[in-house]
Amino acid sequence: MTAVTDSPARDVDPVQVHVPLGERAYDILVGRGLLAGAGQRIAALGARAAAVVTDDTVAALYAGPLDAALRGAGLRVSLVSVAPGEGSKSFGDLERVCDGILAARIERGDLVVALGGGVVGDLAGFAAAIVRRGLRFVQIPTTLLAQVDSSVGGKTGINSRHGKNLVGAFHQPSLVLADTAVLDTLPAREFRAGFAEVVKYGLIADAPFFDWCLEHWPEIQAGGPARDHAVAQSCRAKAKVVVADEREDGERALLNLGHTFGHAIERQVAYDSRRLVHGEGVAIGMALAFRFSAQLGLCSPEVAASVGTRLEALGMPTELACVPGGAGTPDELLAAMYQDKKVAGGELTFILARGIGQSFVAKGVPADNVRTFLEAESRGRSIRGG
Amino acid sequence: MTAVTDSPARDVDPVQVHVPLGERAYDILVGRGLLAGAGQRIAALGARAAAVVTDDTVAALYAGPLDAALRGAGLRVSLVSVAPGEGSKSFGDLERVCDGILAARIERGDLVVALGGGVVGDLAGFAAAIVRRGLRFVQIPTTLLAQVDSSVGGKTGINSRHGKNLVGAFHQPSLVLADTAVLDTLPAREFRAGFAEVVKYGLIADAPFFDWCLEHWPEIQAGGPARDHAVAQSCRAKAKVVVADEREDGERALLNLGHTFGHAIERQVAYDSRRLVHGEGVAIGMALAFRFSAQLGLCSPEVAASVGTRLEALGMPTELACVPGGAGTPDELLAAMYQDKKVAGGELTFILARGIGQSFVAKGVPADNVRTFLEAESRGRSIRGG
Repeated sequence: MTAVTDSPARDVDPVQVHVPLGERAYDILVGRGLLAGAGQRIAALGARAAAVVTDDTVAALYAGPLDAALRGAGLRVSLVSVAPGEGSKSFGDLERVCDGILAARIERGDLVVALGGGVVGDLAGFAAAIVRRGLRFVQIPTTLLAQVDSSVGGKTGINSRHGKNLVGAFHQPSLVLADTAVLDTLPAREFRAGFAEVVKYGLIADAPFFDWCLEHWPEIQAGGPARDHAVAQSCRAKAKVVVADEREDGERALLNLGHTFGHAIERQVAYDSRRLVHGEGVAIGMALAFRFSAQLGLCSPEVAASVGTRLEALGMPTELACVPGGAGTPDELLAAMYQDKKVAGGELTFILARGIGQSFVAKGVPADNVRTFLEAESRGRSIRGG
Repeated sequence: MTAVTDSPARDVDPVQVHVPLGERAYDILVGRGLLAGAGQRIAALGARAAAVVTDDTVAALYAGPLDAALRGAGLRVSLVSVAPGEGSKSFGDLERVCDGILAARIERGDLVVALGGGVVGDLAGFAAAIVRRGLRFVQIPTTLLAQVDSSVGGKTGINSRHGKNLVGAFHQPSLVLADTAVLDTLPAREFRAGFAEVVKYGLIADAPFFDWCLEHWPEIQAGGPARDHAVAQSCRAKAKVVVADEREDGERALLNLGHTFGHAIERQVAYDSRRLVHGEGVAIGMALAFRFSAQLGLCSPEVAASVGTRLEALGMPTELACVPGGAGTPDELLAAMYQDKKVAGGELTFILARGIGQSFVAKGVPADNVRTFLEAESRGRSIRGG
């Protein structure tokens, strides 16, 4: 009786994933309906005011319910909204968001709430990291990609004219609320692209999870416990790596499986989401990483071909030729990789694999090998499915 | 013999101040001629390239010698210069500096070098904090203010339309080279304003140092060991406070003696350095803090009057009426203080004093008391010299 009376907007029991980062430890809650109960959970962090940062698309769907939930818990609420899309990860929008947070008189102890996908999370998290030299923030990721990727790791930032995510900060959230019901309104293309990051965790270090993902794809699309499990398991996998290497000096680079190729392709299409969204770049990048591993004799061509086939079965692109308008020449892709921030000492670092679930960090990969591989890929696949 | 041969540009033995911040520990070297030997010292940090950030005024004087010193030590060097003045602590200039560092292909392990006063140090340090989510940086402060203030503490940042330093990061330098010879070219007004921050350390917690500063002012202006001692002793004093409270949660606020009033006055003149430079605002703010302390019965009116008289003897302004064009009404100053980032829970925090060298953090000072005091100050001094 009491519980029901005290918590009219109580959500169903969420799955809790703890990210044990010492004094920066926090929880990720995963479940349907968390948005409605967000007020109590955020007020419990001790804040008196919240600046909600979102984008115009998400605002139309969820800013109203979140505003009501926060006000219902006694918080003063302000809203800052940016245009949807990667273009908002700019210095101009960063200034607008910082100014909006300051105009809302958010003080140390109060909160910034990032309501949206990866762009909003990166931008709002970075603004929280630098306004008054650091405010606490809560993430309410509204895309599958953001729930399984940006929720864990504390990476925040914006893009530079020199490349993606080249300006930013490490700033851990105080709480993540991954409401899997909000994914019901996500376009199918974005849901599928986000799923590329889910299967990535299987390809990196968990072959059974990769199999599980393929088997349960229809249920995950439909929503329900399988979707919650996919999100929670991805967060657990990422948390395990991040906790071991918070500042990305070593093994955390594993999470970049598919990303060195993927980011380079994204640069070639100038981050135009009509041509390619991030998860699609990662899907192509993961397929390339396995075929490159096969070409280097690290894994069998059969395994590389199987990875490609299975990603295609999920409806994901797996080749450079899949990019509308082309993915650029091998030299253009190489130049883009050299500007990527994961370059150390002028050499290229790749995540390569000895098999499914057996990825590793390969430093000092010679550019010539990469060029040869990309030339073969540009002519048609380097490794053909068997 | 060997030492002379190996180090043709060796400077005179500098004073070394160690700032023991664990894995973020670093040294401040203080002495005449350090610029010429900067190459070896910076190369010794293991960098292969350096992006020097400076302003156009300093560039004309010292960018050439620094460039020669760095190249002489085998480093690849790039230069990014901004316009002199507080106006460069903007999002626009931050973007320009970040882009310049990225264009110079500075990688993790390389260095950003801040060559200039507080503006350059704050801007370049902040850019270093956020480019690739954190690059190392070296400070070569070229003003007295920067040598005794920005050298220690790791505070970096830019201004917002809502106030000064409201956007930034804590980012410790890897090394600070305070070449006291470069202060020879500093305008007398700037040198004097910087000296306000030197005497501040005496007023906070070291009455004998306050006396020493007044006695040795002519030698400090002339250059030589007294100047080096003034700089080194200030760095030591600040380091002691910062080490105890790196993230400014408690006693570090002591360093803001004179700054709550000072920042508010600076906002009123819109950071126009023709009307007021930072150190002048601090000088007025310190005199006000002592008179406010006297009005609250915390210290004797005689002590407050003596502080004012002695600051005036150094040629520093000590009253609101000293600000050309006026310092704003009490209500305007109060509103400016409320937007200052040192506001917690809607109440004002001041650094007050029970005597010279006996400052303390006073939280929750009622706004009414501040208004009454400022009204008296606006009509003429609240406490008259005896």
